[in-house]
Amino acid sequence: MQHEAQRGRVAIEGVQPEIDGGRFPIKRVVGEQVKVEADGFADGHDILSCVLLYRRQGDAAWTARPMEHLGNDRWRGVFTVAELGCYAYTVKAWIDRFLTWRRDTATKAEAGQDVTVELLVGAALIEEASTRAAHPDAERLHAWANALRGDGDPDQKLRLALSDDVAHLMGAYPDTRLSTTYEKELGVVVDRERARFSTWYELFPRSTAAEAGRHGTFADCAARLPAIAALGVDVLYFPPIHPIGYSHRKGKNNALLAGPDDPGSPWAIGSHEGGHKAVHPQLGTLEDFRRLVARAHDYGIEIALDIAFQCSPDHPYVREHPEWFRWRPDGTVQYAENPPKKYQDIYPFDFDTDQWRSLWEELKSIFLFWIEQGVRIFRVDNPHTKPFRFWEWLITEVKREYPDVIFLAEAFTRPKVMYHLAKLGFTQSYTYFAWRNTTWELTEYFTELTQTAVREYFRPNLWPNTPDILTEYLQVGGRPAFLARLVLAATLGASYGIYGPAFELCENQPREPGSEEYLNSEKYEIKHWASDRPDSLQATIARVNAIRRQNPALQGDGSLRFHPVENEQILCYSKHTADLANLIVVAVSLDPYHTQAGWVELPLEALGLDPHQPYEAHDLLSDTRHLWHGARNYVELSPQTAPAHIFRVRRRIHTERDFEYYL
Amino acid sequence: MQHEAQRGRVAIEGVQPEIDGGRFPIKRVVGEQVKVEADGFADGHDILSCVLLYRRQGDAAWTARPMEHLGNDRWRGVFTVAELGCYAYTVKAWIDRFLTWRRDTATKAEAGQDVTVELLVGAALIEEASTRAAHPDAERLHAWANALRGDGDPDQKLRLALSDDVAHLMGAYPDTRLSTTYEKELGVVVDRERARFSTWYELFPRSTAAEAGRHGTFADCAARLPAIAALGVDVLYFPPIHPIGYSHRKGKNNALLAGPDDPGSPWAIGSHEGGHKAVHPQLGTLEDFRRLVARAHDYGIEIALDIAFQCSPDHPYVREHPEWFRWRPDGTVQYAENPPKKYQDIYPFDFDTDQWRSLWEELKSIFLFWIEQGVRIFRVDNPHTKPFRFWEWLITEVKREYPDVIFLAEAFTRPKVMYHLAKLGFTQSYTYFAWRNTTWELTEYFTELTQTAVREYFRPNLWPNTPDILTEYLQVGGRPAFLARLVLAATLGASYGIYGPAFELCENQPREPGSEEYLNSEKYEIKHWASDRPDSLQATIARVNAIRRQNPALQGDGSLRFHPVENEQILCYSKHTADLANLIVVAVSLDPYHTQAGWVELPLEALGLDPHQPYEAHDLLSDTRHLWHGARNYVELSPQTAPAHIFRVRRRIHTERDFEYYL
Repeated sequence: MQHEAQRGRVAIEGVQPEIDGGRFPIKRVVGEQVKVEADGFADGHDILSCVLLYRRQGDAAWTARPMEHLGNDRWRGVFTVAELGCYAYTVKAWIDRFLTWRRDTATKAEAGQDVTVELLVGAALIEEASTRAAHPDAERLHAWANALRGDGDPDQKLRLALSDDVAHLMGAYPDTRLSTTYEKELGVVVDRERARFSTWYELFPRSTAAEAGRHGTFADCAARLPAIAALGVDVLYFPPIHPIGYSHRKGKNNALLAGPDDPGSPWAIGSHEGGHKAVHPQLGTLEDFRRLVARAHDYGIEIALDIAFQCSPDHPYVREHPEWFRWRPDGTVQYAENPPKKYQDIYPFDFDTDQWRSLWEELKSIFLFWIEQGVRIFRVDNPHTKPFRFWEWLITEVKREYPDVIFLAEAFTRPKVMYHLAKLGFTQSYTYFAWRNTTWELTEYFTELTQTAVREYFRPNLWPNTPDILTEYLQVGGRPAFLARLVLAATLGASYGIYGPAFELCENQPREPGSEEYLNSEKYEIKHWASDRPDSLQATIARVNAIRRQNPALQGDGSLRFHPVENEQILCYSKHTADLANLIVVAVSLDPYHTQAGWVELPLEALGLDPHQPYEAHDLLSDTRHLWHGARNYVELSPQTAPAHIFRVRRRIHTERDFEYYL
Repeated sequence: MQHEAQRGRVAIEGVQPEIDGGRFPIKRVVGEQVKVEADGFADGHDILSCVLLYRRQGDAAWTARPMEHLGNDRWRGVFTVAELGCYAYTVKAWIDRFLTWRRDTATKAEAGQDVTVELLVGAALIEEASTRAAHPDAERLHAWANALRGDGDPDQKLRLALSDDVAHLMGAYPDTRLSTTYEKELGVVVDRERARFSTWYELFPRSTAAEAGRHGTFADCAARLPAIAALGVDVLYFPPIHPIGYSHRKGKNNALLAGPDDPGSPWAIGSHEGGHKAVHPQLGTLEDFRRLVARAHDYGIEIALDIAFQCSPDHPYVREHPEWFRWRPDGTVQYAENPPKKYQDIYPFDFDTDQWRSLWEELKSIFLFWIEQGVRIFRVDNPHTKPFRFWEWLITEVKREYPDVIFLAEAFTRPKVMYHLAKLGFTQSYTYFAWRNTTWELTEYFTELTQTAVREYFRPNLWPNTPDILTEYLQVGGRPAFLARLVLAATLGASYGIYGPAFELCENQPREPGSEEYLNSEKYEIKHWASDRPDSLQATIARVNAIRRQNPALQGDGSLRFHPVENEQILCYSKHTADLANLIVVAVSLDPYHTQAGWVELPLEALGLDPHQPYEAHDLLSDTRHLWHGARNYVELSPQTAPAHIFRVRRRIHTERDFEYYL
């Protein structure tokens, strides 16, 4: 049995980008381009026309963009996503009988062959197109067809038939009856710009009181906003702000038994004071929180909340919805464990419950609740321990109504699981950055993130530290290590964040040797940080963030390329804007102990640099300028004074005045 | 809205092999394995079970094969295709609650924790499994559950719970209610062995008469069968055997005007004597043809026919089915052309006709007609100038009824088109082999064919020459070039063929310099070949084909690997059986003029060779034996005496007698 669709003679395959055969959408932010490539070819030697079709989700009509033939049956087209939400794209192609006829007729005429009959064939094609056209094009086409059929001068008819005017108008009315449309519609999720470029700062609100010994409040947080804004932060992220459970509450340094004054871990959520939609009373009221959100907004800062789907034994859900937990034969609730470790202060939800639908709805309502309070960014705690399809459903549902919401996945787990969560919809993702320390490790990992299909759906957010992660590198490297990791995070990643108060003060004492936990971790006690200490990194952080804001090259990750250095203790890489107008070259010493020097080698042509002209390398960190020549230039980095350079490279020295810096 | 299917917690992706997202099937021959890999993972840390499902097309029930975890969330399973036809496969996985419980309980017990409640949880899981089991397993499971719930010795209960017996029986009754099945069913087309391993020989039946000057017949062909069988050929392929048109018939050397005695090109099909279902009268009758097919069968030879979908102006179709051709405004039929070239002796079918359905059916009936005459192998002429979907439909339709039919695509065109035709269903494909001459070209091309996804659907058939292709390399290289190309074709390709009579006699005169056409091409005249001339390559061809038959390593392409030689005029590669029992190493000189020598370097470990033991390299072409040691060994190749070695490498020297050869 033959089907009408089998008449299409064009094959379309190898469409890129396409994630897992079209199962998952790619990601973009508003105003970005989607470059689509596809193989398109037909039997024989006829000429194809190939268009890229795209539309917003829900629109009935496609917009078509012509695709350009790149050679070897490969085509490329581009469209721009102008609005938040979801787009779809696909590819359509057909045999262009007129263009084919035009090429063949020109060839025959050039070879001196008689083209009398060809002109009649062309006239028929043009006449046919006129029936697809509207006034006045239809009349023009009809008149041309008549002229070609008439008894005018053959040369004149040939010139008309092959004219650009005819080709142009024929191109507007192609015969697409036997066209082929690629069998899949591929998706794009379009986020706002902060999804791609964001500067995060994590702090515990309870530690923000001006004076030591007092529990911090949202009002205290508000008082800190000017200082935080001065750092160049645009996302201020809080660990959970909900009531903390009492049963099995943890003491200092994760002690099994809490003392009477121990505040407990904010991740042990819920007590008689409320659950995931309540505010810990000592932080203030919901009204206070909303006021803080608004205040932060005035400073260009968004408050991001931590959503951790787990309950303390005292959480109201345990009593009100026992069906959402797993009950053991002894009548107790199954607590979290990673045998032989036990976490009796936390009950996980039982996602295998038969009441999964009501559980999913309730968890979604938690996001909606905080969205109603003005929050649009969520850091999701351990998403890899909740079902994948739950996240896909939840994120799709929330973003349908609130396409500006950003979800950051805190999934420190196996690579395929991390990537899968990003495919399912998480806007940004934590990475392995914290544990990538050597030139080889960093080059390998960031090449994978930025130069493979991963870049289409996984947006890295780099954290040199978190309240859970004090890396060995920071422990042993001290201040130079903090500086190097700061520059790496802020320039390798368009999005990065720090667990700020501890980072600023280069806090690097582990709970015990071999542990990545902080000694006297803020997770279990209220801290009073001397953020203004003279050795604080605040000024450097502010400078790095200002550089990020002033240089669009650092606001995306797609252009990242690594460059060879004849010293493997130095990592060198560049980022640039599409037009190369903004070009940043970074050199970081990975050695926190010794001065390191070496020759960096830049691919001048790819970076738009003239191999025969000097160019300026302006270190934006130290505000010093260097005159570089050719591909290979010398850098020297010292742990104490300058463990990193962030060069703005300008492609031409324009005036003699520019030379004064070096003469 | 949530759907029940969203409860499955396992994600399955990255399934391999999978061609274009499952759009096309892979290919295998009867008895071969299909190794399937997939990423399978779930949230959290539970243990998965993962199975490969497969079935014959049309069967309702799947067969399951366990998949093995390879690490990094990658799984592998294998099944064997036992019968001709189509198979489907997919992957299914689920959280194995019992295995997870078993691992965690063992860990807790080892850590000295009380597992009283865990034993009750395990009892519940076993009891549940008993409801899925039949007699007597159900009773056993129930008894175990009771034992675990009873008041027996705790240690004894623990031993029972963790015993292999319990695990084994629980594995037979998994709870797959919340399983995930990969969303696609992937296809396998299973052919007979000749699809993978075949030795082709092309001749023009009209040139087979014993005495010069006479038109050969099918009876003459039959008389040649013993000699052809002695060459080791198993597919004897004829250019079209149909009546040849008279209008615009081509003369010798493609002259525009034929003389009265010129027989014309067999590809100008059809005259008043009949069309695609008729036999050229001078060859004999349809009955003669059937007799020849049967006779060939006695010699282990199959007759392959050329199917060329084009018509001479005299073909009955032109008169009977004008709707299948394109008519020009001057009332003539559009002939084939590649402007400015014209082929007035050939009318192509107009596949864009509105009567495409009847055209397709008729063309299919041509295959069925010859199948009824006993033909099961078709070489399809220029398939790339007919619509892709037509071939997909036709091959699927024909193979549904006759799964043993083999289609060889003669598509010399752009790479993506060649690969697409293979995806659509062609069993074997002509390749670029004829024009790949250097070490780099051959290595590059055959690595692509045998070590990328191409290997799953594209079966190369290598032709050093055809009636259309006398390569420059053969023209200038003469006999040594013919020898080298013979060995390359016969050992790089499990399937290969020669345009035999011309190849045997090293016929290498082009029509004119720069042309790949033969001078006095057999396409336009009847030849009388002196196949028994003393300088004929027949004996070498017979030897090479005997080597192919005796060495299963050469009967497939998947194991092909190239090995470095310190002389780029020598190409070295190996093939082996899966168990390494048959290992062939080939060294070919690509230089037809000078003696070339060099050190070849073999990857001993991958080839199962002991680096500390000598091994035997037995040149099957010259029947000489060499004692090789270690990875690097010397070869010397001379154009006149031995331009190639085909070594059977044996992994161990067993007896002193073996050493006699070298001492």
